[in-house]
Amino acid sequence: MSESAVTVFVCVSCRRWRADGEAFDQPGHALASELRLRLREMSGSDVGIVDVDCLAVCTRPCTLALAGTGKWTYVIGDLEPESHVEEIIAAVKSFAASENGIIAWRERPPSFRKGVVARVPPRPSRLEPVEP
Amino acid sequence: MSESAVTVFVCVSCRRWRADGEAFDQPGHALASELRLRLREMSGSDVGIVDVDCLAVCTRPCTLALAGTGKWTYVIGDLEPESHVEEIIAAVKSFAASENGIIAWRERPPSFRKGVVARVPPRPSRLEPVEP
Repeated sequence: MSESAVTVFVCVSCRRWRADGEAFDQPGHALASELRLRLREMSGSDVGIVDVDCLAVCTRPCTLALAGTGKWTYVIGDLEPESHVEEIIAAVKSFAASENGIIAWRERPPSFRKGVVARVPPRPSRLEPVEP
Repeated sequence: MSESAVTVFVCVSCRRWRADGEAFDQPGHALASELRLRLREMSGSDVGIVDVDCLAVCTRPCTLALAGTGKWTYVIGDLEPESHVEEIIAAVKSFAASENGIIAWRERPPSFRKGVVARVPPRPSRLEPVEP
């Protein structure tokens, strides 16, 4: 089994306070499950969903990261499993289809326009090391 | 020339407002230059410094990302080229020496304890893709 073309890391540690402020839930589990379900319905999908214990963006639940060989990695926060699954699926498709992981602005769903936490370029494959 | 063991991506786009609020500088250039200088002085260093146009953490200049094969990638913000270079060098050494990129808390310099913006795990090398 080869590596998936795209990996979606979903933080399942994020704690989101309920509206009443009395308790929190951990919506990353629901988000990861829903994304798996939706991707199974898509034929030809080569996307792996990976649960992660903490992407260290604790103040902006839910959080996920999109990664792929030769692509920029994007960390996105402020995602809601109740309302953003379709937008995430659309963004994952655009990310997978892109050459370098950079999704054209017009193709970015609103949650992805607002939710970018950070991005990291692919590592250079033949970077010249700093010599002593 | 093979890939460096560790890559330090330094955002050179970050704008930092001066204390007088009249103008901004872009301290990432100075930070990248200083890190290159320090690493040249270290024998056996296998670290590449890469300037990046925007890591998308614009509210927390300066920002950098540490990445390495099989390691978690860490994005760190709120770094000052005037005061944090030695801490960054120490963290880069710890990161390079670590098995998976996770630096023990006691080894993390203060700027790295406070400055974590996000972290992303290494991609699974033989992840089972979601089948249709």
